Amino acid sequence: MTMAEVGFLGFDVFGTVVDWRAGVARKSEPFLRSKGLDVDPLTFADEWRSRYDPAMEEVRAGRRPWVRLDVLNRENLEQVLRRHGLDPATVPAAELHALNLAWQELDPWPDAVEGLTRLKRRFAIGPLSNGHLAGMMRLARFGGLPWDVIVGAEIARSYKPQAQTYLRSAEAVGLAPTQVGMVAAHNNDLKAARECGLHTVFVRRPLEHGAGQRSDLNAEQDWDIVADSLVAAADALGC
Amino acid sequence: MTMAEVGFLGFDVFGTVVDWRAGVARKSEPFLRSKGLDVDPLTFADEWRSRYDPAMEEVRAGRRPWVRLDVLNRENLEQVLRRHGLDPATVPAAELHALNLAWQELDPWPDAVEGLTRLKRRFAIGPLSNGHLAGMMRLARFGGLPWDVIVGAEIARSYKPQAQTYLRSAEAVGLAPTQVGMVAAHNNDLKAARECGLHTVFVRRPLEHGAGQRSDLNAEQDWDIVADSLVAAADALGC
Repeated sequence: MTMAEVGFLGFDVFGTVVDWRAGVARKSEPFLRSKGLDVDPLTFADEWRSRYDPAMEEVRAGRRPWVRLDVLNRENLEQVLRRHGLDPATVPAAELHALNLAWQELDPWPDAVEGLTRLKRRFAIGPLSNGHLAGMMRLARFGGLPWDVIVGAEIARSYKPQAQTYLRSAEAVGLAPTQVGMVAAHNNDLKAARECGLHTVFVRRPLEHGAGQRSDLNAEQDWDIVADSLVAAADALGC
Repeated sequence: MTMAEVGFLGFDVFGTVVDWRAGVARKSEPFLRSKGLDVDPLTFADEWRSRYDPAMEEVRAGRRPWVRLDVLNRENLEQVLRRHGLDPATVPAAELHALNLAWQELDPWPDAVEGLTRLKRRFAIGPLSNGHLAGMMRLARFGGLPWDVIVGAEIARSYKPQAQTYLRSAEAVGLAPTQVGMVAAHNNDLKAARECGLHTVFVRRPLEHGAGQRSDLNAEQDWDIVADSLVAAADALGC
């Protein structure tokens, strides 16, 4: 059986399970309009998201102590607003807070709930994401994601693709790295997971970044499973 | 609305949600028989369980660093076997390991899955238990417990009733202590939770320790909710 020794599948969430771009744009649109900012909400979402990895890199590089993703997202939001000429200090804190919650109200891709429900029959499943615990919990309730547990960055106090994130998550679910499968739409995530000994499941998400996406359109290594949806991944794994 | 500000219910699990005594006895019975040990499996379960709190107390008192509950359970198992004249060093490690997994294969009380499913409509729910993450995950899969997240001892690296266990769990789900409700069959758990600012839900489990149970038969304070089952707690909370 494929991945016979695997007992837990850890999932990248933003992009792999949920459509962050449409969700963040949907929540940003009324805010931008109310502030008179002439920015396309999808572009705004892209700009906000583009600061995500550099912000985590500050932590990975040891230039700042580990902080939760909601803190980074909030800082990044303020930077993007400034870039568009809006001083965040002039916006009521509750409005900024509410907008930052956009990252906890994202629709699952259409195949996600069915795929996870089927995968859960054979494997324990959970986010192995850079998101924080509370955010992952709210996202699961928002979208009906049937996780068994939440591991990832907050458990490990490190951000993917740093090895500790995968290794501590495996340890937390009581398994060796070789008994864990990483499911992601991002080759760099799978590459790091494989280097830690994890199995790898690549799910193509060619619209994560919109119609012009150039990255992660194809598998860049011979991942254990390559699929076009979580339902297809369930098929491939006999779930 | 009762407990209107509460967004998360944290559950004691052993005794409150699952029947550890019958489950541990069921798993122990064939082991005891195969070793020729003339011990009633329920008595064996009680003896094993009786070492649980003193073992955690070593951690709470700072006499040993925090370790996961499966480590304590395994040490306690070896002590009980010795007490019955069986040297655990003569037992294959895999057998001891398998027996120790008894704590992850416990039936929910008959009302638990329905009660949790209903409570989950209004509140995020999760173990706020002294159990470890992997054990709580396997117990949930074994019994079909629909948790949203797992917090408690391993997240906090401390054991209830130490305050840090409640406070760190609340923080992990992104809420103030006053926005969390503790659900337990044990007055001392609720007392400590209340002292941290949490709301309190007492669920009577008069058979947790068998027919002769003397402890926790009644509410010892005016807990916010007092109920005879998780279904009754859901009724009381309008779920």
